[in-house]
Amino acid sequence: MRILVLGGDGYLGWPTALHLSARSHDVGIVDSLVRRSYDLEMGTESLVPIRSIHRRVRTWELVSGNRIETYVGDLTDAEFVYATVDAFRPEAIVHFAEQRSAPYSMIDRSHAVYTQTNNVVGTLNLLYAIADIDRSIHLVKLGTMGEYGTPNIDIEEGFIEITHNGRTDVLPYPKQPGSFYHLSKVHDSHNIQFACRAWNLRSTDLNQGIVYGQETPESARHPDLATRFDYDAVFGTVLNRFAVQAVAGHDLTVYGTGGQTRGMLDIRDTLACIELACENPAGEGEYRVFNQFTESFSVAQLAEMVSDAMPGQVTVRQIENPRHEQDEHYYRAAHTKLLGLGLVPHLLDGGTISSLLATAARHRDRVDPRAILPSVQWASTRSTLPTAVHPRGRHAARPGHVEHIGQLPHAERNQRAARGGIATGPNGATREERSGAVENAERP
Amino acid sequence: MRILVLGGDGYLGWPTALHLSARSHDVGIVDSLVRRSYDLEMGTESLVPIRSIHRRVRTWELVSGNRIETYVGDLTDAEFVYATVDAFRPEAIVHFAEQRSAPYSMIDRSHAVYTQTNNVVGTLNLLYAIADIDRSIHLVKLGTMGEYGTPNIDIEEGFIEITHNGRTDVLPYPKQPGSFYHLSKVHDSHNIQFACRAWNLRSTDLNQGIVYGQETPESARHPDLATRFDYDAVFGTVLNRFAVQAVAGHDLTVYGTGGQTRGMLDIRDTLACIELACENPAGEGEYRVFNQFTESFSVAQLAEMVSDAMPGQVTVRQIENPRHEQDEHYYRAAHTKLLGLGLVPHLLDGGTISSLLATAARHRDRVDPRAILPSVQWASTRSTLPTAVHPRGRHAARPGHVEHIGQLPHAERNQRAARGGIATGPNGATREERSGAVENAERP
Repeated sequence: MRILVLGGDGYLGWPTALHLSARSHDVGIVDSLVRRSYDLEMGTESLVPIRSIHRRVRTWELVSGNRIETYVGDLTDAEFVYATVDAFRPEAIVHFAEQRSAPYSMIDRSHAVYTQTNNVVGTLNLLYAIADIDRSIHLVKLGTMGEYGTPNIDIEEGFIEITHNGRTDVLPYPKQPGSFYHLSKVHDSHNIQFACRAWNLRSTDLNQGIVYGQETPESARHPDLATRFDYDAVFGTVLNRFAVQAVAGHDLTVYGTGGQTRGMLDIRDTLACIELACENPAGEGEYRVFNQFTESFSVAQLAEMVSDAMPGQVTVRQIENPRHEQDEHYYRAAHTKLLGLGLVPHLLDGGTISSLLATAARHRDRVDPRAILPSVQWASTRSTLPTAVHPRGRHAARPGHVEHIGQLPHAERNQRAARGGIATGPNGATREERSGAVENAERP
Repeated sequence: MRILVLGGDGYLGWPTALHLSARSHDVGIVDSLVRRSYDLEMGTESLVPIRSIHRRVRTWELVSGNRIETYVGDLTDAEFVYATVDAFRPEAIVHFAEQRSAPYSMIDRSHAVYTQTNNVVGTLNLLYAIADIDRSIHLVKLGTMGEYGTPNIDIEEGFIEITHNGRTDVLPYPKQPGSFYHLSKVHDSHNIQFACRAWNLRSTDLNQGIVYGQETPESARHPDLATRFDYDAVFGTVLNRFAVQAVAGHDLTVYGTGGQTRGMLDIRDTLACIELACENPAGEGEYRVFNQFTESFSVAQLAEMVSDAMPGQVTVRQIENPRHEQDEHYYRAAHTKLLGLGLVPHLLDGGTISSLLATAARHRDRVDPRAILPSVQWASTRSTLPTAVHPRGRHAARPGHVEHIGQLPHAERNQRAARGGIATGPNGATREERSGAVENAERP
């Protein structure tokens, strides 16, 4: 099949492209490379070193003999989207190309607006391009289990049959997303569903759980093929972060009681699910939703599993939850559709945890402990990032002062970040002050 | 109370401002005046002549002795939003300031993207400004009954109790919006609900039905105070349009069978509902939804009522439905909360219809028949507007040709519209050709 992977330079997009290419699909990747610029903005980097998109693609061709067509550009640029879809003429488009961090979207107004416009406009442009160029293209869109929130009833796959006042209908499952990022995915889901109805498009919305792991059979074939491994508070996800904390000799920091339960899956299962969705496309006009995870765990359970893997060497510590979410809640979510298509999950066991810990240990010297503790507070409209140093009197918070921030384009935002002028605000002490690490802080 | 009306120059925003001002509230209005530029873009105008915002406000001060503070600016400009909220310090903000036409949002990609970014970003900026400046400000936001679509069960006011697999929860009512405009309102609703949860804001989301009528007790005090009366296919709403068709001697054009049933209300009830919502604010952290309509009618019923008011003079004609919607469907929607606060509705009767017909008749010479028939097709990604003339070979559609349109800023879009180069596309004949009215078409 001809498959175009949007966000093909990212944590999951890159190994997905390799996986599909290794299985003899004709693969193209599209990426704006903006994920790498978030690293510059945040002063963080992948724990595992990654190569440029150009070198990745060249090395893959050397190793596998398969060429991956590469398009660098931004989905919010409609002209680029039309030209790329028209040039590659895919049968399926796998769409990972969104700002994917909840904390990043909650840094401040400008990051919230950026996240929603970037994600929603990119997807709108894509829907129009498909409608205009070839309505038979199957859109495989990455959503998130976080769209559902934590309702007190079972979560179904996208739709729920409701009987009310004696009548029955099957309706979209009600969504209660918990950040401006998660909201952007809910907006996308509604837009895509409408486009399928209005224009007879075909789409699969994959409401993915939290992914763990870094190595895949293809990425393991050469160090140049490694994908990102994020452990920082903004882009890192929980199990990867615990592995890094464990090998770096830090406490495993659990938000609140750690009772938050989430659907999770192994990175290798992400790749398998994407391939299954592509090979079993939605019908004409069909918008379908698969819940893409294999097991549910509470955060406390995950911490315990990591702790058990390094007996006596790891402490679990509860810290204040920076998010607005329930620490303890009912959680039971359906996830049978991908299993029905043949998914054979890699379940989370000691072996997987050991392999994660080994990856983290190999790159222990690259761990920046300042990047791990939460820097973005949901209750605040402006957040202090760990890389920002605020000499009192210059950047320090002025209570009651309203800073008038215009709507900054991304480039200007980055300049401000480089000057240390971004993400400062009235929420009190800086991260360094809170952790007592001021003496080690880099000055901008 | 100090009440800031966003979109205070619009069809409903202006009479709302007058209504509140007449009742001794301290009223400010905010408007970008973009609604007037849509008229320029579309080549249409309000049937009833309207004055500039400046003259409106001056005349109101002469007539009533009350001053309305006026701010001209755009909600997508965060700096303007912060400065305005900070300067006026309202207790309530009534938010009408969105692109409000479903057909306008469906013209093409650029209008869809414009509608969603304009509405979503404006509301995001507002939420941040409230959170930063004064979290006690009550946000009264205009949503639409169209957010719900037409489910096969009763529609409730924002939330529904669902019992599923033996457990029960009260969850947001599932939404099935039918255009990129309606989708933008659904996105807003989700964003506002989250902001209330995360920042303890207070908001009332008014899911309004279709409004009819033009005159209010305050606007009747001087011709300068008149509000808009739109009858064109893009911005006009159904009953107002029927009134104009009737007095202009045209058939009343019903989309499909006319079985589409919608909640409706008199313009005077809109004003009363807004005031009731302001005077009975949502609690801290509360996001509540009121369904703001008073009666439900099918489109065919409305046509019949207008036809009955002018016996023997009016023909009802079914035309192809340009929208993607059900012609016949179940429809029963709750609307008790505003009644519970004391709303006494003006129900639709012969008197109201006669008054609408009289308004239309007074301005019969201003009717542009080319503006009435639907020009935007839901199934197409590009639409031919009635004002566009396409000499074959220059602007005419080239089948299979993909025009690569970049993401145009609004100003550039308007220039293209002025050149006649906008909203042309592969969907065949122009409106003039379809209606045989080419000979009368203005050339751009």
